[in-house]
Amino acid sequence: MFEQMPFNRAVGIEITHADDGHAEGRIDLEDRHSSSPRTRVAHGGVTYALADTVGGAAVISAVEDITPTIDMRIDYLAPGTGEVMLAEADCARVGESVATVDVVVTDGEGTRLATARGSYKTGGDSTDSAWSEGAPRIREEESE
Amino acid sequence: MFEQMPFNRAVGIEITHADDGHAEGRIDLEDRHSSSPRTRVAHGGVTYALADTVGGAAVISAVEDITPTIDMRIDYLAPGTGEVMLAEADCARVGESVATVDVVVTDGEGTRLATARGSYKTGGDSTDSAWSEGAPRIREEESE
Amino acid sequence: MFEQMPFNRAVGIEITHADDGHAEGRIDLEDRHSSSPRTRVAHGGVTYALADTVGGAAVISAVEDITPTIDMRIDYLAPGTGEVMLAEADCARVGESVATVDVVVTDGEGTRLATARGSYKTGGDSTDSAWSEGAPRIREEESE
Amino acid sequence: MFEQMPFNRAVGIEITHADDGHAEGRIDLEDRHSSSPRTRVAHGGVTYALADTVGGAAVISAVEDITPTIDMRIDYLAPGTGEVMLAEADCARVGESVATVDVVVTDGEGTRLATARGSYKTGGDSTDSAWSEGAPRIREEESE
Repeated sequence: MFEQMPFNRAVGIEITHADDGHAEGRIDLEDRHSSSPRTRVAHGGVTYALADTVGGAAVISAVEDITPTIDMRIDYLAPGTGEVMLAEADCARVGESVATVDVVVTDGEGTRLATARGSYKTGGDSTDSAWSEGAPRIREEESE
Repeated sequence: MFEQMPFNRAVGIEITHADDGHAEGRIDLEDRHSSSPRTRVAHGGVTYALADTVGGAAVISAVEDITPTIDMRIDYLAPGTGEVMLAEADCARVGESVATVDVVVTDGEGTRLATARGSYKTGGDSTDSAWSEGAPRIREEESE
Repeated sequence: MFEQMPFNRAVGIEITHADDGHAEGRIDLEDRHSSSPRTRVAHGGVTYALADTVGGAAVISAVEDITPTIDMRIDYLAPGTGEVMLAEADCARVGESVATVDVVVTDGEGTRLATARGSYKTGGDSTDSAWSEGAPRIREEESE
Repeated sequence: MFEQMPFNRAVGIEITHADDGHAEGRIDLEDRHSSSPRTRVAHGGVTYALADTVGGAAVISAVEDITPTIDMRIDYLAPGTGEVMLAEADCARVGESVATVDVVVTDGEGTRLATARGSYKTGGDSTDSAWSEGAPRIREEESE
């Protein structure tokens, strides 16, 4: 499901695991992810997109429903200059209307690049429709 | 300068104004920015990337140096289902070592889609090198 | 109601206005609020307690129910060294399950001391009981 | 030093350990800490004041200097209805100008009540004076 999200596909975000309130994901870093025109340092938006997506996957794995992000804070600890960024997310609390999630982003060699913490909506239909009703349809890519 | 950042170019983030601690920017939304495979709702990572970049532009316009993001919080207020997302950022405080920035993201028709608040490093060289030393070089795109 | 909260009374937090998603409050600063043993600089916890309380008052004025804080971020902009701290809070979004609130804390002379942004639960009974069931009773102060 | 801070003394915050970037502290909860007039549920400002103070103690133990809080986010996970709140803080990053700190608040029986994450200034004198110059002197309590 996450790989079908157009922006995740565009950025190269993969969800590698999602079960029981825990999720993992990764990005293989390429030049296009950089914030610098000369050296490859992952843009903060890449790190955030990974954290937000993996955090959402953790909540979805717990409540089995779409869970929009309410808010998220990210703290940058070290520059993402490696080949990959990995993220692990765990639900700290899953309530009837809100879940709180912790995310840690590493470089795959033990260095923490960022931590994030977010609140996501749980509780289903009304919330879902509130966030997407009226949105334009995406054009089918597969036309003959 | 911001348009030369590979990830900003990839996402389509434009900085349209940056002066004296205030900055503005935009993204023209396309299907690839969506978090949904069927309808076009901007992925939270798109909104964040815009907010972080415009926030950084506001700080850079005040201190005239590279200013890494320390941390940022984003709150989502409404789904980004329009044609464009606009962001405006203002420095609330510019100190010798840290600046605090407020960002508001709208749909261009008066609806606030998100607000963000971040801390950015100011104070220059040592900080800069701490964040980028050892980063791999980006391959030149223009080779004869 | 807010003045009856024991901790607010202990700290000296007053709600001076709360209506239609907007609230205002104040603390008259005394030596006991200081984080320093020698000079009077308001402890960050005082500023936060004011922001959280006034933020909650804004949400309560909109939904007319108890609204526990889910999360809050506070940014300190200048030290609270004056005679008073004032706070104003406005709901940026009031949803069925969550509200987002902005708070600005000033010194009463136009200087912003801090800004805060928080998410509060709305939606009533189940939430309320989840947060307080099993709590110990407070001893009556007035016993004959 | 922390016990000499007037507000910490007023609230009853104790620092029980602070060394090498790690700190621990506690509050013995009393009726006066409550946000409710009838049952004893710790006010969010009490939890925050503990988290901010213990977080600051962790940074001070690493850099041996005064370290003002730049910003902090707190997430509430469960109501504080027990006899005590304990906090543990660890520095996730200590830089020349900024440190990032993680704090976990528990009820002393294994239940997490809140988590917090904050940025604190490091780097000393200029920062310190920027935050406290011009502050009023505290009246000596002990005059003969």
